[in-house]
Amino acid sequence: MSNILSKDIERIEATTMADMVELRLRQYLKKKAFKPGDALPKELELAEALDVSRNVVREALSRLRMLGMIESKKKRGMVLTEPDILGGFERVMDPLLLEHKTLEDLFELRLVLEMGLADLLFTRKTKKDIEELESIVNKEINKVQKPFQVKYEIAFHGKLYQMTGNDTFMRFQKILLPVFEYVVAEEQKVNGVAKVGSVTHRDLLELLKNGDPESFRKGMKEHLSPHFERVQ
Amino acid sequence: MSNILSKDIERIEATTMADMVELRLRQYLKKKAFKPGDALPKELELAEALDVSRNVVREALSRLRMLGMIESKKKRGMVLTEPDILGGFERVMDPLLLEHKTLEDLFELRLVLEMGLADLLFTRKTKKDIEELESIVNKEINKVQKPFQVKYEIAFHGKLYQMTGNDTFMRFQKILLPVFEYVVAEEQKVNGVAKVGSVTHRDLLELLKNGDPESFRKGMKEHLSPHFERVQ
Repeated sequence: MSNILSKDIERIEATTMADMVELRLRQYLKKKAFKPGDALPKELELAEALDVSRNVVREALSRLRMLGMIESKKKRGMVLTEPDILGGFERVMDPLLLEHKTLEDLFELRLVLEMGLADLLFTRKTKKDIEELESIVNKEINKVQKPFQVKYEIAFHGKLYQMTGNDTFMRFQKILLPVFEYVVAEEQKVNGVAKVGSVTHRDLLELLKNGDPESFRKGMKEHLSPHFERVQ
Repeated sequence: MSNILSKDIERIEATTMADMVELRLRQYLKKKAFKPGDALPKELELAEALDVSRNVVREALSRLRMLGMIESKKKRGMVLTEPDILGGFERVMDPLLLEHKTLEDLFELRLVLEMGLADLLFTRKTKKDIEELESIVNKEINKVQKPFQVKYEIAFHGKLYQMTGNDTFMRFQKILLPVFEYVVAEEQKVNGVAKVGSVTHRDLLELLKNGDPESFRKGMKEHLSPHFERVQ
C-alpha cells in the first residue's frame, strides 16, 4: 500500500539549511552579475539578510570556496574568483561510487570525444607533437611481448588530447582516466584479454602525418572498434 | 623587487581547515573502498580522529553533501550515495565568472562532441526520433524570415544528444548551453549576424535517414564550418 502511494505522491527531498543558503547565494551572484574580483558582503551581513545563523552561512560559503568561486583576501575579505570548472567533477570521479550505467555513459563520452578530435588535431599539430608521438610509438613497439598495455594507451591518447592545446579538454580526459581503466579491466575479466582494433597507434600516427581528418577518423573508428562493438 | 621574488618563490596557497578535512575525508573513503549505502562514522568521531572542531567537520561534510556523495538517513546517520557527477560543473557554469579562454575551450569541446556523435546516432536512432527531428525542422522552415534562431539550434542539436540515450551526455550538453549562447552572441556582436554553414538541419536529417556515419559527419563539419573557421 505504501509502495503504491509513493508512486503517486512526490517525496520531499531532504534539503538542509545549507542547501538553501547555497542556492540563494548563487542566485544573488547571478542576479547582481558579480564578476571575478568583486567583493562579497560580510558573513554577518549575509546571515542577517538571510535570517539564518552564521554557521549555516559559513557552511554554504565553504561550498562555494570548494568550487573555487570565492577566495578570502587579506584586508578585502571574500572576493569572487574564476571557478575551477572541473573541480567538482574531479572530486566525485571514483568508479566505486558510480553506478554501472554512469560508468558506461562516461566511457561512451570518451569514444565520442576521440572520434571528434580529428579536426582540431589537423589544425594544431606541430612537428614537435609528431616527434613525441613517434617516440611513444617506438617505445611501445619495443615491448611487443605484451600486446596491450594500458600505459601506452594512456601515453598515446593523452598526447592527442594535449595536442589540441585545449586545457579544459586535457584535464577532462585525465579526470576520466580511472573510468577507462575500470571499464577496460571489467572487459578483460569477461573476455580474458583486451581486444584491439586492426589499426594500431603506429597507423594512426602515419594518418596524422600524411592523411586528412576524414582518413584519420576512419582509422580511429577501426582502432576503437572493439569498444564500439560493445556499445552496440 | 617583490615581483621578481614572487617569480622564484612559490606562494603558499590559502588552505583552510575545511579544505584539509574535506581532502582527508575523501582519501579515507577511497582507502576504505566505501560504496553507496555504507554508513559513515559519526561527526563527533570524525572530529576526534582528525583532532579538529566539529564545526570544521560539519563544513567539510556539507561540501560532500553538495556533491551528492553523502546523505543523512533517519536512524542510520550519514550514508554514502552515488554522487551527482555533474553537480559541481553545473553550479559554476556562469559565463560571467569564466575567463574568455575557458569559454573558448568549452565551445571547442562542443564542436568535438558534435563531430563525434555520428556513430552513436546511427546505432541508436529510432523511427520516433526521426519523426521528432522532422517536426523540429518543419517548424524552423516555416519561419524563413529569420535565418538564424538560437531556439531551433537548441531544439535540433539537443534532440541529437537525446538520441544517444546517454543521460550524462544530455545533461552535459544542457549545462553547456549558456556558454554556446554567450559565444554565439559575442560572435554576432563582431560579425553583425551569425554565419551559417551551407548544410542545413534539413540536410542533416536527410543524411541521418539515408546516409551513413561518414556522410553525416561530413555534413556536420560543413554545418559547423563558420565555428571551425573561427577556431583556426
